[in-house]
Amino acid sequence: MFVKNAWYCAGWDKDLSLGRDGLLARRIAGESLVLYRRPDAAVVAMEDRCCHRHAPLSLGRKEGDSIRCMYHGMKFGPDGRCTEIPGMSRIPEKACVRTYPVVERDNWIWVWMGEPAKADPALICEAIGPGDPAWNLRLGYVRVDTNYRQEIANLADLSHVAWVHSQTLGGSDAWSNIKPRHELTERGIDTRYCVRRTPPPSFARHLFPEGALFDIQVHVRMSVPCNFILHFSVHEVGSATEGPTNGRLVLDTFSSQAVTPRDAHSCDYYYSWGCSRATDMPGLTDLMHEANNDAFLEDKAMLEGQYQRMRERPDAPSVDIVHDAGPGKLLWVLDRLLKAEARAIEIVPA
Amino acid sequence: MFVKNAWYCAGWDKDLSLGRDGLLARRIAGESLVLYRRPDAAVVAMEDRCCHRHAPLSLGRKEGDSIRCMYHGMKFGPDGRCTEIPGMSRIPEKACVRTYPVVERDNWIWVWMGEPAKADPALICEAIGPGDPAWNLRLGYVRVDTNYRQEIANLADLSHVAWVHSQTLGGSDAWSNIKPRHELTERGIDTRYCVRRTPPPSFARHLFPEGALFDIQVHVRMSVPCNFILHFSVHEVGSATEGPTNGRLVLDTFSSQAVTPRDAHSCDYYYSWGCSRATDMPGLTDLMHEANNDAFLEDKAMLEGQYQRMRERPDAPSVDIVHDAGPGKLLWVLDRLLKAEARAIEIVPA
Amino acid sequence: MFVKNAWYCAGWDKDLSLGRDGLLARRIAGESLVLYRRPDAAVVAMEDRCCHRHAPLSLGRKEGDSIRCMYHGMKFGPDGRCTEIPGMSRIPEKACVRTYPVVERDNWIWVWMGEPAKADPALICEAIGPGDPAWNLRLGYVRVDTNYRQEIANLADLSHVAWVHSQTLGGSDAWSNIKPRHELTERGIDTRYCVRRTPPPSFARHLFPEGALFDIQVHVRMSVPCNFILHFSVHEVGSATEGPTNGRLVLDTFSSQAVTPRDAHSCDYYYSWGCSRATDMPGLTDLMHEANNDAFLEDKAMLEGQYQRMRERPDAPSVDIVHDAGPGKLLWVLDRLLKAEARAIEIVPA
Repeated sequence: MFVKNAWYCAGWDKDLSLGRDGLLARRIAGESLVLYRRPDAAVVAMEDRCCHRHAPLSLGRKEGDSIRCMYHGMKFGPDGRCTEIPGMSRIPEKACVRTYPVVERDNWIWVWMGEPAKADPALICEAIGPGDPAWNLRLGYVRVDTNYRQEIANLADLSHVAWVHSQTLGGSDAWSNIKPRHELTERGIDTRYCVRRTPPPSFARHLFPEGALFDIQVHVRMSVPCNFILHFSVHEVGSATEGPTNGRLVLDTFSSQAVTPRDAHSCDYYYSWGCSRATDMPGLTDLMHEANNDAFLEDKAMLEGQYQRMRERPDAPSVDIVHDAGPGKLLWVLDRLLKAEARAIEIVPA
Repeated sequence: MFVKNAWYCAGWDKDLSLGRDGLLARRIAGESLVLYRRPDAAVVAMEDRCCHRHAPLSLGRKEGDSIRCMYHGMKFGPDGRCTEIPGMSRIPEKACVRTYPVVERDNWIWVWMGEPAKADPALICEAIGPGDPAWNLRLGYVRVDTNYRQEIANLADLSHVAWVHSQTLGGSDAWSNIKPRHELTERGIDTRYCVRRTPPPSFARHLFPEGALFDIQVHVRMSVPCNFILHFSVHEVGSATEGPTNGRLVLDTFSSQAVTPRDAHSCDYYYSWGCSRATDMPGLTDLMHEANNDAFLEDKAMLEGQYQRMRERPDAPSVDIVHDAGPGKLLWVLDRLLKAEARAIEIVPA
Repeated sequence: MFVKNAWYCAGWDKDLSLGRDGLLARRIAGESLVLYRRPDAAVVAMEDRCCHRHAPLSLGRKEGDSIRCMYHGMKFGPDGRCTEIPGMSRIPEKACVRTYPVVERDNWIWVWMGEPAKADPALICEAIGPGDPAWNLRLGYVRVDTNYRQEIANLADLSHVAWVHSQTLGGSDAWSNIKPRHELTERGIDTRYCVRRTPPPSFARHLFPEGALFDIQVHVRMSVPCNFILHFSVHEVGSATEGPTNGRLVLDTFSSQAVTPRDAHSCDYYYSWGCSRATDMPGLTDLMHEANNDAFLEDKAMLEGQYQRMRERPDAPSVDIVHDAGPGKLLWVLDRLLKAEARAIEIVPA
């Protein structure tokens, strides 16, 4: 169901304050976690379950670099070992809580849900964070009640922009006719294409004269499950009809996004979007942010409707179309990882 | 569970406008449908599921006599065949969506959920629609969260009027002592009786002098699943003690009703009720409509409470009483149809 | 799952008026009941299910000492026998509804869910009711969505007061270091201990000078499932370091509590709390009542969080600590009763 040896986004760095009650409860890939920041700012991720009687540690209290369960007062260090049981002098060997490797990068918090020894930060998708001085980024979040396979399939095929987002990010059928080139990477796909001679998106059409056209150069890197970056740069219409546009750059935009499955039926979707400071103008990033918030609610409505239909009749047949190439490749990578993990567990049973 | 070779009510004609977004999502007998009106006013009913990736077509858009899925833009004609896949020139053979036979009659929309070849409009229960100039009818709707067998059992035994509706449609124990004559028909029952010497119903008692009494002649035709008409005519008290009343007609009322199971646990209940224009007076049909709306919420509360108890203890025994004859006959007809369909599927496997 | 041969609390006497609509629907140990008061004030408890078609009798109407189902008008005497079926002259033998033994004591209504012949009122936990002139008691109620085993484990170990209730009933770690003496009784445990040299609880700290200390003498009697009384008496600090305090009595408080499982996932929790009139002062019992209401919501939050974690991963291991002795003994008594009932059913199959 879930790839465990993978980094999952648990939110933005701003979600974890140093405050005494700065405890963040998250559900990731079917497990309940609590995250908190130590006095030295390092982030701890633990199973959100006291080893005594399973009370949520997220209802607890931070004490120095430790967390105290507020049911019976058991205290756990940042390595998950119990260091105090009020009323007892001896701490049982087994009194500890599972911890998870954590990396903070690009203002994101990443948690490794599998074997700690395999937690290689090189597997985290490169991104641009809101702290990057070259970009003016806004942050957003939406919960989507679907299986994450549908969510990442949605994101791996932007031809849906023409339809789902016709009133926001879309506004022409140019998106229907894109010819993406998807290259397989170690854990995902790398996709490039140019949307040529397209009018401005619906949300920005009023800013331009009737008939204005642009080339949009797109570069998407996705790695399962499921972090990805979108680099959209808007150009004047160029003369090239194949390969990248050769029109002059007008606006450079960048989005970093992460889909974290909560469980089989629900995802957390984190996203940033904005313009390079070199090409931004006052109000533009905010306009784009409003449009994105609207658009991701359009996705949510479509994806939740789709998932309802899928659950009503799980064995209904489906017809493939040309735009399925991206989702197909990405889910193929995901399935390959899932199978490799299942095999590894078979060989070395837990 | 559900008879498939049957007409199910999908609502009133007024529920389907010619507007661009006039898409009606309905759940009928365990299937999800979308209905829309073509420019020539004909109604199309389709499975509410794009054949590509199962997105709901009810989140789509009408284009001429077609419907376009707004996930990836696939367009389907009124026969369910895909006629356009944006970005592709060839349409795969299998790209089509199931459609359902539809008949509009008596201002009602009827959908056939089984084999199209067997869709015989003669099987639709005769009714009087709100468009009939001889009657002054009002329309109502209530969703009831129960299995439809309980809903139709409720409707097939009007002795409950004395109790469930004591504050509205009832008001005397005359309804407890009715002796209905139920005749089996091809797909239901035909029931006649006279409620003799009964005071006016609670909702209308203030209109009459103390002690006023009437005969109410009742004729109910029910056909599974589950359309029915009720003809109540109010007469001055007559001298007959058996058979129809021979009192003078005072008020002629008519109700057409339909129960459409959504799934095993929920029904849509559509109803009209009103007076003949020959016997109506200003305000009377509205008074009756208010009382019916109240009464059907009384039914809803009772039926939902009953269903909760049934689910809590499905094997609890039950005692039969004299008033179960009508429900028993109707459910017998239903079970006969269900068994016949099950046998047919066994012989010719799908 | 549930001990059936046991008294369960169905609420306070004040919950059952003599009013015509004074029908109380309760769910107890997985069964649905209706309770009502006869004209002579005696309480009747019946299965909340008409024997005809399972309609809830709690939607019915009181008539003298009987209850009438308002679906088809069947009337049942206080012994559950049907005495009237409108429209029928003969009442079928089997037309009756199960009744349950009821005892009213200490302003509480107790219902026996098992074999009536075994309903021994001596098994009801002794309590002090709000009607007792020697005590000034307040009543409260909270629904907790957890399995009742977790609820009674919570109540059998008051070391949690130090943590869960640190802002209300707790306020010192004295509660973490209690050394309760649990004595097994026929159907529960009897627990005594002294909390020595403890500051006033958080909710009352402002009433005393800095550094004020007290001895709290605790006596708890619990019987499964699950009624219990807590007798807390507050004393000046005494010189005894073992056994009961020998300090002068300052305040005598008493709480009677009952946990009634609704089903596997939910409990009703009824409680009273207050001071002896001999030691009370104006406003004190109200202050304590407010603190208790707050505290029991703190328990609710912790218990519901714990139960969510337990359902997410039912096989997660757990580590025992010294404070588990009370809950362990109480659950041992419960399991012994559950096993005895299971054996009895095996020998004499129903």
